Amino acid sequence: MIRFGIIGCGLMGKSHATSLKEGKIPGATLAAVCDTDPKVHEWAKELCADVKTFSTTKELFDAKVVDAVIIATPHYEHPIYAMEAMDNKVHVLIEKPAGVFTKNVRQMNEKAKTAGVVFAIMYQHRTNPLYRKMHEMVQGGHLGELKRTSWIITDWYRPQAYYDMGGWRATWKGEGGGVLINQCPHNLDLWQWICGMPTKVAAFTHNGKWHNIEVEDDVTAYVEYENGATGTFVTTTADCPGTNRFEVMGDKGKLVCENDELIHYKLEVPEREFNRTNTDIFAKPKYERIVIDCPSEVSFHNGITQAFVKKINGEGELFAKGEEGINGLTISNAMHLSSWIGKTVELPLDEDLFVAELKKRF
Amino acid sequence: MIRFGIIGCGLMGKSHATSLKEGKIPGATLAAVCDTDPKVHEWAKELCADVKTFSTTKELFDAKVVDAVIIATPHYEHPIYAMEAMDNKVHVLIEKPAGVFTKNVRQMNEKAKTAGVVFAIMYQHRTNPLYRKMHEMVQGGHLGELKRTSWIITDWYRPQAYYDMGGWRATWKGEGGGVLINQCPHNLDLWQWICGMPTKVAAFTHNGKWHNIEVEDDVTAYVEYENGATGTFVTTTADCPGTNRFEVMGDKGKLVCENDELIHYKLEVPEREFNRTNTDIFAKPKYERIVIDCPSEVSFHNGITQAFVKKINGEGELFAKGEEGINGLTISNAMHLSSWIGKTVELPLDEDLFVAELKKRF
Repeated sequence: MIRFGIIGCGLMGKSHATSLKEGKIPGATLAAVCDTDPKVHEWAKELCADVKTFSTTKELFDAKVVDAVIIATPHYEHPIYAMEAMDNKVHVLIEKPAGVFTKNVRQMNEKAKTAGVVFAIMYQHRTNPLYRKMHEMVQGGHLGELKRTSWIITDWYRPQAYYDMGGWRATWKGEGGGVLINQCPHNLDLWQWICGMPTKVAAFTHNGKWHNIEVEDDVTAYVEYENGATGTFVTTTADCPGTNRFEVMGDKGKLVCENDELIHYKLEVPEREFNRTNTDIFAKPKYERIVIDCPSEVSFHNGITQAFVKKINGEGELFAKGEEGINGLTISNAMHLSSWIGKTVELPLDEDLFVAELKKRF
Repeated sequence: MIRFGIIGCGLMGKSHATSLKEGKIPGATLAAVCDTDPKVHEWAKELCADVKTFSTTKELFDAKVVDAVIIATPHYEHPIYAMEAMDNKVHVLIEKPAGVFTKNVRQMNEKAKTAGVVFAIMYQHRTNPLYRKMHEMVQGGHLGELKRTSWIITDWYRPQAYYDMGGWRATWKGEGGGVLINQCPHNLDLWQWICGMPTKVAAFTHNGKWHNIEVEDDVTAYVEYENGATGTFVTTTADCPGTNRFEVMGDKGKLVCENDELIHYKLEVPEREFNRTNTDIFAKPKYERIVIDCPSEVSFHNGITQAFVKKINGEGELFAKGEEGINGLTISNAMHLSSWIGKTVELPLDEDLFVAELKKRF
């Protein structure tokens, strides 16, 4: 039995604690909860009389009652507590995002190399078979060289009431951003997992455009990849009904994922080859339209935690290694920075400039 | 019978001449063809023995054998010949785009005010009932205040063989641009006709990226509107199968036009009102999904010419007034300029700067 501690027990931490308590993660048990709020300790005791409660991570780790932790604190603290867990030889599953800025996420990743623990990140949308299939097809070369990608992901609707919960949410100092850092880490991760990392980012973010918040709730971004391919990413928490349409165009065909359906447009000959060899002025490459057959089950958070437990036991593979969290965060940081300085940002990111600009907004 | 002259008889001019000769435009007849190429005169005589042929527009207008002209020359000359026709009290239907730069298109529009002739532009996609419905709904306020728009219009596939026809096409000096000025005038017109004119444009154009041409064949643009709404426009002549997906998000709902189908997502209460009044942190406004019933017939070029003939006879309305051509062209010019100078461009456009930058590319 892997004994779990939950560090940070707000909305998500409570959800993870409850799943563990209810036996939804075979081979895992809820052993401890760590939170600064005494009300959370009461809540935890009511959930499970045996659970140990702690107010600081030092007490938690000193007690040696957990084999693994899920870190669900405000984002700034993810890398701090992850590194502390690693120092204590405790396996770590961090909530997304990996952190707020890449500089300390990079330190966390460095430490993970020699920590000797399993390190995972809660990218639960990676359990979606549609995105897994897209990753497999694009990274497996079935689409040929990437030409263009577009993700309109505007279905993260949040009413003002959501933001009115208050606390650290939707503030620069408490959360480090808005829709990019809270809702979109999943999409930015999937985007890079499927299409690779861009090399240039130009973004247009709008702060408190639709809600009474200080951070961005509306973003349009343009990216370029090393091979010259381009991409767009559009998100908001104010559109209803929003759109979730992810398109990837390659030399050998196109994938379109929308309305829980994945369509593959498969070219008979690659477009670049057709372009070179065809002599008819209005001809187009021929293609086949294929609806990809995918399982509809998505295991979400519990799937991620289950794979983490199995990995600790030496079985199977993680859905997402903790070290990969830096990729989506890098794109997120680049989007913020580009919009703040009004310029296209090149990767690798100027991490010091990002932190300096972020702090100006505290 | 309205006697038509065709000025510029290449690919499109020949098509218009043939439609007139074949009686596809009731009330209109092909009277003259004006082209500098003697082979075109032979072609015209073969098409119709009665047709008069001219090598210059001066000869054409001096002969007083036409009541109306269709101008299908290279784009730079559209405003020049349109103004000459107006001076000769001849009705004018110009091919798109209205011109290459807004400065002389503006002069053309000024002259049109007092010319006393019918002035139309060949925006044949305005005859599409789907776009007409979108215009009616958005401009009629059915979507409420505009929030966001996205048009992925990458289905303008052209192989290298198309560009290898040579001549004035796909050169800065001969055509004044690539996909923006040749294929996209329709979409840029429809975009502004339906969503209104943006006030800021940031674009990323790529020249000869997919073809051996000197002009752009790949464009991504971001725009902002006066009310703060945002938009994206993505186009290329190299994607196959390309995408044609046009989405308009408003406070009261959304329209999505793709695969010759128009879907209306109609909110029960406007999103802004819901956002203010709702108290549930994860609630969303309710909506209904409606497939808009539209006629499938599109009359294209002949529909435009027919409406032009009727208007000359004092009946009905044009699909697109010639004066409206400046709108889409302004967006096109702004996209080029933004990409050339690497900055967001504000409208009204700096027309002199645009022309100076364009000439640098000759």
